[in-house]
Amino acid sequence: MNSDHPAVTVIGLGSMGSALAAALLDRGHPTTVWNRTAGRAEALAARGARPAATPGEAVAASPLVVACVLDYEALRAVLEPVEGSLAGKVLVNLTSGSPEQARETAGWARSLGAGYLDGAIMTTPPGVGSAEMMFLYSGPPEVFDAHRPTLAALGDPVHLGADPGLASLYDAALLGLMWSTLTGWLHGAALLGAEKEEATAFTPFAVRWLTAVAGFMTTYAPQVDAGRYPGDDATVDVQIAAIDHLIHAARARGVDNALPELLKHTMERARDAGHGSDSYASVIEVLKNPAGGR
Amino acid sequence: MNSDHPAVTVIGLGSMGSALAAALLDRGHPTTVWNRTAGRAEALAARGARPAATPGEAVAASPLVVACVLDYEALRAVLEPVEGSLAGKVLVNLTSGSPEQARETAGWARSLGAGYLDGAIMTTPPGVGSAEMMFLYSGPPEVFDAHRPTLAALGDPVHLGADPGLASLYDAALLGLMWSTLTGWLHGAALLGAEKEEATAFTPFAVRWLTAVAGFMTTYAPQVDAGRYPGDDATVDVQIAAIDHLIHAARARGVDNALPELLKHTMERARDAGHGSDSYASVIEVLKNPAGGR
Repeated sequence: MNSDHPAVTVIGLGSMGSALAAALLDRGHPTTVWNRTAGRAEALAARGARPAATPGEAVAASPLVVACVLDYEALRAVLEPVEGSLAGKVLVNLTSGSPEQARETAGWARSLGAGYLDGAIMTTPPGVGSAEMMFLYSGPPEVFDAHRPTLAALGDPVHLGADPGLASLYDAALLGLMWSTLTGWLHGAALLGAEKEEATAFTPFAVRWLTAVAGFMTTYAPQVDAGRYPGDDATVDVQIAAIDHLIHAARARGVDNALPELLKHTMERARDAGHGSDSYASVIEVLKNPAGGR
Repeated sequence: MNSDHPAVTVIGLGSMGSALAAALLDRGHPTTVWNRTAGRAEALAARGARPAATPGEAVAASPLVVACVLDYEALRAVLEPVEGSLAGKVLVNLTSGSPEQARETAGWARSLGAGYLDGAIMTTPPGVGSAEMMFLYSGPPEVFDAHRPTLAALGDPVHLGADPGLASLYDAALLGLMWSTLTGWLHGAALLGAEKEEATAFTPFAVRWLTAVAGFMTTYAPQVDAGRYPGDDATVDVQIAAIDHLIHAARARGVDNALPELLKHTMERARDAGHGSDSYASVIEVLKNPAGGR
């Protein structure tokens, strides 16, 4: 074994698991791979990976075992039959799931004498291996620190804290931000497209504008933590007036308005709760307190 | 008159109009100001602005007239009584309104022998005067080119095209992106806040993640223009499975789920329309075709 490039096992060779194994091979890590159906390992074997015949052989091959399978049930189905072999190993679980599943799996690994990190991959398979892409981890800091150089082969490793549920929680929050942002962008592209403005013309402005929006988020974050939302720059009342321009323009062009109408309704709930003169950050108060009737 | 710093008139001295006048004064432009209620001009007069007694006097004072009032009705109410004085002037209208109002007002200005640019301010009053902030303009390119150096005092002037409705249309689209992004971010902050993670801890990750999301937008924009959405990186089906993690995690923590549920419903409409194996960009197909029943 090369101590600069420790051996790694990758369990699960879907498009993401295959990208993980390929990134490890590219960085010179001896890489053992296993997949429920064996065919997936062939392309990786051609690049130098060692296909394991069984999960037990895969776990035995390396001190660090990276798993990326369909869900936590699939993970346990693969590893529980060979759980005796996990003692002294570190399991890095990049499977998507809930914070509760992450915490439960961390307890199970601990009971076996295995180290455990739960992780979330904040990119698509083509982005794996890029140092710009965030890989979020949570679990014991000493386990993270010991394996950080190896994890850096996959992307930029970020440690969120000792609670193994944090990576999953951040993953959900950041994906929610992504879907909201992409759908808002697509709504704008549909609005402009109705006037023959191309998405490729609109998008550079949208990308630049997101930098300003990120600035608003940075301004508003301490307001959220303090629970006080001074509306010095722009108030909820001002935003409610402004969103009518969007709703009218989109309606006139036959564009679906469910998203801006929900956003307006949410702002109105904030206003009705007394935040009309507060900043947009005050909208979090209604998100923290769901409307029973909706 | 200083030819390097042409005289400018600012009509409307709300917080935004006052910021515009202050930025012009800071850059050395002789600046005449007028407001419906006179008190607003006093602070600017102390900084060197010349308060006009009437709209007619204000328009007469400068070749370039920047207007930022409540709405288009207010604009016409101020300027129609003195419309004879607009001949040979250029009116830069930064009042918020619809593309239709912008086009109508451009025609009115043209009939008076005035040049006209419609504009949108993509920042809050504290951001006015920063070269990083976009000011969007639409209207005759030669009018924009002639006054670009003066408009640069307010922010980075961007010309979208000759159609005077474009600035308003882009404004609506970009604000929609902002509200979507901010609400998605607040939803994530509420989710993490339920586990005592602070918004100031979450937000740097959210800001960094937006850079990756902007990369997805740039990848997807040509797909939107082509009307074909290859799901090479991640499919709508994959996103539908993933958003359930967010919905479950938020529900378990008592966070309002109206936004992610709407996003999921929109994705499901895209899937039902045959886009399950396509990229997220295909969601625009359902936004272009509103659901009658919703």
